[in-house]
Amino acid sequence: MAHIALGVNETDYPGISGPLIYRAETARPLSELAEVLLRGPSTLSRGERELIAAYVSGRNECTFCCGSHSAIAAVQLEEDVEFVEQVRGDLDHAPVSPKLRALLRIAGAVQVSGRDVTPELINAARKAGASDLELHDAVLIAAAFCMYNRYVDGLGTMAPDDPDLYAHAAKRISEYGYLV
Amino acid sequence: MAHIALGVNETDYPGISGPLIYRAETARPLSELAEVLLRGPSTLSRGERELIAAYVSGRNECTFCCGSHSAIAAVQLEEDVEFVEQVRGDLDHAPVSPKLRALLRIAGAVQVSGRDVTPELINAARKAGASDLELHDAVLIAAAFCMYNRYVDGLGTMAPDDPDLYAHAAKRISEYGYLV
Repeated sequence: MAHIALGVNETDYPGISGPLIYRAETARPLSELAEVLLRGPSTLSRGERELIAAYVSGRNECTFCCGSHSAIAAVQLEEDVEFVEQVRGDLDHAPVSPKLRALLRIAGAVQVSGRDVTPELINAARKAGASDLELHDAVLIAAAFCMYNRYVDGLGTMAPDDPDLYAHAAKRISEYGYLV
Repeated sequence: MAHIALGVNETDYPGISGPLIYRAETARPLSELAEVLLRGPSTLSRGERELIAAYVSGRNECTFCCGSHSAIAAVQLEEDVEFVEQVRGDLDHAPVSPKLRALLRIAGAVQVSGRDVTPELINAARKAGASDLELHDAVLIAAAFCMYNRYVDGLGTMAPDDPDLYAHAAKRISEYGYLV
């Protein structure tokens, strides 16, 4: 049970959905940020961006966000969730593009501290073809999930165990987005 | 110099202001979130909320955000910056209310991981008079600054040394807010 009374049945509204319903004033910018970063116009595909979100959420050990964004990444990339787990578990050898691998390394640094993003990591991503805007968005997606993960777990919300629930929600979000 | 070309003179636009100008689509929800959390209607004073922001930013070693929000907290609380430094340096003995101290302890836990927020920390804050909404907002302010701090430092932006610059900006933000 969450640390505060969210006013919803947590089985029906697990993870971040309870806090978003609880406080509409903060839900609006939180949802808009996710929509812009993960689904707005970008030279990074939606699947690539969701993979960054899943990667950071996994490193923050946020069961709900990692489960959710792994499932969404799988839908968008037309892969199965095992592919996402492979990327999360062994980035060096995962079958992703050199550019995405370099952006995920930057995201991994951001997860620890913004100060861990070195010129070497930035230059490596540039050499692999990353633009300034892609670098910006990779940093901000990683930073944003350091917020969402802490929001979800800091309020002690419930994370379902059933993978089918994440897969079901992933299809809905892939179709309708984060603003609903 | 920042890791990417932000298109601004960083001396005039230090810290987060460069990235906010660089990407208007993400600046909007980022600014709106800060405005709602730190300045919107709340039973926590604006100064108390800025103190939570400064406290978390200090623990994340984000020079720009810690300097900025320490200066803003001082303006709002009608204290000098040394008071904020006292709270950041020795929370157990700082002259703040028991409720604010308990909320700052929760914020300190969130800074490490959302999973570090224990029922004991929540109950202690409740006993000191914190409402559910105050608990929610303390968690989300702390989580949000784990994002802002990583955004600012992950892009390698410039943090001024001169305390007068922070004090000057603090007066402006105290008057006009985060949406300008």
